[in-house]
Amino acid sequence: MTELAPPTRSRVLAALRAQRIETASWAFGNSGTRFKVFAQEGVPRDPYEKIADAATVHRFTGVAPTVALHIPWDKLDDYAALAAYAKERGIGLGAINTNVFQDDDYRLGSVTNPDPRIRAKALAHMFECVDIMDATGSRDLKLWFADGTNYPGQDSIRARQDRLADALAATYERLGPAQRMLLEYKLFEPAFYTTDVPDWGTAYAHCLALGDRAQVVIDTGHHAPGTNIEFIVAVLIRAGKLGAFDFNSRFYADDDLMVGAADPFQLFRIMCEIVSADVLKPEAGIAFMLDQCHNIEPKIQAVIRSVMNVQEATAKALLVDTAALAAAQRDGDVLEANEVLMDAYHTDVRPLLRDLRGEMGLDPDPIAAYKRSGYYETVKAERVGGEAAGWGA
Amino acid sequence: MTELAPPTRSRVLAALRAQRIETASWAFGNSGTRFKVFAQEGVPRDPYEKIADAATVHRFTGVAPTVALHIPWDKLDDYAALAAYAKERGIGLGAINTNVFQDDDYRLGSVTNPDPRIRAKALAHMFECVDIMDATGSRDLKLWFADGTNYPGQDSIRARQDRLADALAATYERLGPAQRMLLEYKLFEPAFYTTDVPDWGTAYAHCLALGDRAQVVIDTGHHAPGTNIEFIVAVLIRAGKLGAFDFNSRFYADDDLMVGAADPFQLFRIMCEIVSADVLKPEAGIAFMLDQCHNIEPKIQAVIRSVMNVQEATAKALLVDTAALAAAQRDGDVLEANEVLMDAYHTDVRPLLRDLRGEMGLDPDPIAAYKRSGYYETVKAERVGGEAAGWGA
Amino acid sequence: MTELAPPTRSRVLAALRAQRIETASWAFGNSGTRFKVFAQEGVPRDPYEKIADAATVHRFTGVAPTVALHIPWDKLDDYAALAAYAKERGIGLGAINTNVFQDDDYRLGSVTNPDPRIRAKALAHMFECVDIMDATGSRDLKLWFADGTNYPGQDSIRARQDRLADALAATYERLGPAQRMLLEYKLFEPAFYTTDVPDWGTAYAHCLALGDRAQVVIDTGHHAPGTNIEFIVAVLIRAGKLGAFDFNSRFYADDDLMVGAADPFQLFRIMCEIVSADVLKPEAGIAFMLDQCHNIEPKIQAVIRSVMNVQEATAKALLVDTAALAAAQRDGDVLEANEVLMDAYHTDVRPLLRDLRGEMGLDPDPIAAYKRSGYYETVKAERVGGEAAGWGA
Amino acid sequence: MTELAPPTRSRVLAALRAQRIETASWAFGNSGTRFKVFAQEGVPRDPYEKIADAATVHRFTGVAPTVALHIPWDKLDDYAALAAYAKERGIGLGAINTNVFQDDDYRLGSVTNPDPRIRAKALAHMFECVDIMDATGSRDLKLWFADGTNYPGQDSIRARQDRLADALAATYERLGPAQRMLLEYKLFEPAFYTTDVPDWGTAYAHCLALGDRAQVVIDTGHHAPGTNIEFIVAVLIRAGKLGAFDFNSRFYADDDLMVGAADPFQLFRIMCEIVSADVLKPEAGIAFMLDQCHNIEPKIQAVIRSVMNVQEATAKALLVDTAALAAAQRDGDVLEANEVLMDAYHTDVRPLLRDLRGEMGLDPDPIAAYKRSGYYETVKAERVGGEAAGWGA
Repeated sequence: MTELAPPTRSRVLAALRAQRIETASWAFGNSGTRFKVFAQEGVPRDPYEKIADAATVHRFTGVAPTVALHIPWDKLDDYAALAAYAKERGIGLGAINTNVFQDDDYRLGSVTNPDPRIRAKALAHMFECVDIMDATGSRDLKLWFADGTNYPGQDSIRARQDRLADALAATYERLGPAQRMLLEYKLFEPAFYTTDVPDWGTAYAHCLALGDRAQVVIDTGHHAPGTNIEFIVAVLIRAGKLGAFDFNSRFYADDDLMVGAADPFQLFRIMCEIVSADVLKPEAGIAFMLDQCHNIEPKIQAVIRSVMNVQEATAKALLVDTAALAAAQRDGDVLEANEVLMDAYHTDVRPLLRDLRGEMGLDPDPIAAYKRSGYYETVKAERVGGEAAGWGA
Repeated sequence: MTELAPPTRSRVLAALRAQRIETASWAFGNSGTRFKVFAQEGVPRDPYEKIADAATVHRFTGVAPTVALHIPWDKLDDYAALAAYAKERGIGLGAINTNVFQDDDYRLGSVTNPDPRIRAKALAHMFECVDIMDATGSRDLKLWFADGTNYPGQDSIRARQDRLADALAATYERLGPAQRMLLEYKLFEPAFYTTDVPDWGTAYAHCLALGDRAQVVIDTGHHAPGTNIEFIVAVLIRAGKLGAFDFNSRFYADDDLMVGAADPFQLFRIMCEIVSADVLKPEAGIAFMLDQCHNIEPKIQAVIRSVMNVQEATAKALLVDTAALAAAQRDGDVLEANEVLMDAYHTDVRPLLRDLRGEMGLDPDPIAAYKRSGYYETVKAERVGGEAAGWGA
Repeated sequence: MTELAPPTRSRVLAALRAQRIETASWAFGNSGTRFKVFAQEGVPRDPYEKIADAATVHRFTGVAPTVALHIPWDKLDDYAALAAYAKERGIGLGAINTNVFQDDDYRLGSVTNPDPRIRAKALAHMFECVDIMDATGSRDLKLWFADGTNYPGQDSIRARQDRLADALAATYERLGPAQRMLLEYKLFEPAFYTTDVPDWGTAYAHCLALGDRAQVVIDTGHHAPGTNIEFIVAVLIRAGKLGAFDFNSRFYADDDLMVGAADPFQLFRIMCEIVSADVLKPEAGIAFMLDQCHNIEPKIQAVIRSVMNVQEATAKALLVDTAALAAAQRDGDVLEANEVLMDAYHTDVRPLLRDLRGEMGLDPDPIAAYKRSGYYETVKAERVGGEAAGWGA
Repeated sequence: MTELAPPTRSRVLAALRAQRIETASWAFGNSGTRFKVFAQEGVPRDPYEKIADAATVHRFTGVAPTVALHIPWDKLDDYAALAAYAKERGIGLGAINTNVFQDDDYRLGSVTNPDPRIRAKALAHMFECVDIMDATGSRDLKLWFADGTNYPGQDSIRARQDRLADALAATYERLGPAQRMLLEYKLFEPAFYTTDVPDWGTAYAHCLALGDRAQVVIDTGHHAPGTNIEFIVAVLIRAGKLGAFDFNSRFYADDDLMVGAADPFQLFRIMCEIVSADVLKPEAGIAFMLDQCHNIEPKIQAVIRSVMNVQEATAKALLVDTAALAAAQRDGDVLEANEVLMDAYHTDVRPLLRDLRGEMGLDPDPIAAYKRSGYYETVKAERVGGEAAGWGA
């Protein structure tokens, strides 16, 4: 990288220092595919141990100060105690994620199930999650519905939309004035014919109907092949309806690989939209979350790497020469405009991030520092016996 | 097919008799890919000859009484004369399609071009098309924008949305109270990185901002792989925002093959949503249009076949036992619900449609009747010399 | 359907009577997605009960006389006893499917694992399966490898091909002269970056290197979006390398829905290639197998329906007027050729199949007969306690 | 970039200096989509002017010393004169590309057409191209067939394979001992149902049947969504059947954008396979060609940028620490192996390439040097009148 002008460097470093990335408790537990969950050693056995792992990620990266919970995987009697434990470890509790897809009752759907008893059960779970938010002080209720159908004719698409709208309205109503609803969409899986919230348009339409505190979540792995995600980012920002990201990456479907691993250029383009709209800063209200499955790689290290990948993409986005870009765009100079963007992308920002970490009192190389810390060896030795956390518990 | 109960048969036949499918003037001209436009014999050389072909389709099918025009491909001095000619031939003029993609000025976009001069030019064309609607008595202004970018950085996604919104608002304002704006979306092509209206969500958001007379057009070939089109149909009907279809079919991208040729089961599922929402009838305001390219097959015959394919899918959709379906759905009987749908789909409705045509005073076999009519031989002999119509003229 | 000419009818009925479809033992056990396996009642708890279910499918359809086993899910001490039990129930044991993806050792691959110890373990399993084939009298060893990588750089693509070739050669060597190796390919899942046998080309190249008794398996759900499966069918038949189908259907990825449920027209086109190459008959050596997951629908009934769907597609393919088709193709009459094909597809063949079943001494309506039989109520009552079969056991 | 060890630096620079990238004559002419070809100024009007443009690309990049021709777009009476002109300008003539898709006769195919007269005509064109190779001294005959069908039933898939095999065999037979046949595959377009050479497996099978001098061409834009191209690269290299690349990039279908513009990480992964198999050097026999359409951007500058993009991806691939990578792969250290690869990818190689150009006596910044050269202004002034070259001429 050619030397940055001091004001640019200050601006970029300040933005990177203020950046916030939320980790997910379930990323530290075991995960897999329908074919196999490969067990790893040292995996947490309860929410407290997940918090400890998330705090470790923050300790080495400095920009991951909150961790999202998933109910019932992180269900406890005393959330205040968990919050206190997290605080002690240097982090806070983030979004509350509902789960209305792992009960035999939800075979044909949760809030869109044709059976009103099951819809009521799902709604009660969502209310319970709002109660938990009250206890944890979480701002965001994140809703992802596995609801859908597998066969043409199985259920009425429209009737399911009506049921969905009803459940969302009741839940929205239940939120406190400082709480938000974040609605996630996904093209398919586990439903294989229709999915009740399959695309951003559907999520957007429901959020519009609900009100200002309902916003859309973009999971970067939840789109049809060929979808331009940064376009959706731009359009949702323009509409004031982008609430959060679930970051991960994919080559095929919802692969849930480490963010930035499959298409780092796409991640950069997404962050360019964020930076150019000036909504990177936490007060802009967009939550940047990781939602990944580390099926075959060590989990804590993978989360650290993921945080770093987001930082690198962000740093590159911050380096875009916006004046030169705007001029080239205005002039219709296609190659020059592209070149301005690529110039930032091709820059090696790792030295800058090492400097940032130094200024923040962190080791410039989080992975190496984590490995040297012996944390993994410790938990591997300690976390023996009991049941390793996973998607089922 | 087992015998239909007389009331069912009457209901189905009445619905099929009332069905209206709009053909497209450009389907009768030459078309092709970027690699080659294969010239065919007997192709019309002006809008009058296109009208004659469209009237021929209606003459043999009885359900295609209007033809859409495309400006400037169908540009004329006297649209009243063209309308009179159409009337004489037994059909009417349908939607007016704008074209802001075939002038060198539109290299970087039309209404979203960074250059205000070019945006103004594009807007003037849209106003001109509203003037033509006034002359033809057309209800619908159909807008498809090729606008987009080919390279990351080439232009600002958000700025282009703002420019698009401005142009749509000005055009909407210009419409008379009985006129509608139909906004079409398309994933890609000719733009290869971003497209300014790439999906139903974007079209929907713009239409919402405009008002009641702005509605979305679903072109069945304009989606990402794996997109569930009937879901979009259902959601847009529920929102009161489905204005029209551009029917065609595809295996890969925007292949523009004859509707029903690639996936007849999908077409049936789409028509099931239409029938179940009771919006098949013309007064429901949804226009069912064909938008196809008959690159290698004879054009008039292909359009007749396409109309028949839509009729067959519709007939099957009308045969669905809605009470049995609703019961199976309510009971969560996945296989029974699917079976009820498939029972209608597997029914051979061609005898029923032959009966319908007999009752309508038509030949039961439109293709055979068209071939026997000698129409093609006549136009092949007459349409010699001059320039065959195509996308350029 | 217009009356078939008696010779046509005889030919079609004879072909349908001779048709053989192999069911899969695992289809009767519980299955699901990574999100949830919904438990069903009456699910078999051991291979014997699976055999009983498979025999029930054959009892009502008459064309499913064998069932494939999966090792270790169907592992037993005494396969001869199992074979005898099957015979008693009226069916036989079919292909043996290996499983080298569900041991923690296989986290980074089985036969392509960088660790030679694990490769040897995987190979030993494949040898064991050949031993089982000797015991069951099975002709076919079906190999599907989950092997691949999740991250760029994780392993050498070429080195893995070399390891794969070695394992295949050793296994092929181990086969008896009347035994075959069937090699399956799959685009992705569970591997998310590279898969070691991702496409038919790779499977074909390995089978070519092995010899005549190595052939390719086409799983209809294992392709990239837009892949023309019937093309692959035609090309592999032409090369003498099509060994088997794993039938199922999908809208998105490897959804494993009932065959014919997502795109019945595609299934028909596939069967047209089979029929036109005259390789439907069992002596042509192509095994027609079902490989599906009935996650939310009742399993036995779903398998019966799947068998019927294959029969219906086959019946339609048998009805194609081959002389008319060949003539239209030769004349370059695109629409006529398409029409000849569609004429067969649009025919309602269910009456013909009902007649076939009558002639075979079966109930014309297998689903209704199965429901009336009380089989499901009986097994639901009997199969209480124990552990329901699934992918893990 | 941290300082490279001198031996590494020497090795990398030597490889980059030896790299050869072939440009395409048609990239300098006008191109577009079926919707519009936007005319640009200064476009060549004959093969000589195209050569001049290609020579200009080589003058500023130093690694593009040959240009491929396309017949009949570059048809001439005297190819020796053209070759002499090229030589004078510092470049040579490369591969000869056939065109059997732009004659009305080829509406239903060329070498696979059901009509033997048309097949003979297509074959004669291929023979003519071999004659041209003899005149130009070209080594490679590059074959891409637009052949396929648009509608199910239109023609026999197998019969077309037979006809294709015949035409390939006759053409292969016609080649001299120092000449090669390069067979390209493409998923779809302009055919929309079947394509006769749709995937690498089909091309590979035909090349195998032909002999050693028949090899496969990978066009990076010709795959189904989700296809792992570097896997195909690795497999074809392993089989000794990779003959050439047609480089370009795409977000959707065959977008033909500048290589490296859509997914630079993918291009890097492809080059990693090339480098790791040591087949970058020209004597390895793989031709690295550009095949792109510069529809909206200035063409010469776009080709220069494309050459640079390939150089940058290559430089990064050359920087991979192969020992560290092999060790991490052997140890099954997923994250470390990925990290080793990403370390090379994240390196900013532009300073290294500037150094390379300096050592080669070139301007370190080819784009700036080209702009300063006034070449474009000159040709814009000179190339007035006449007919601009395009796909039609």
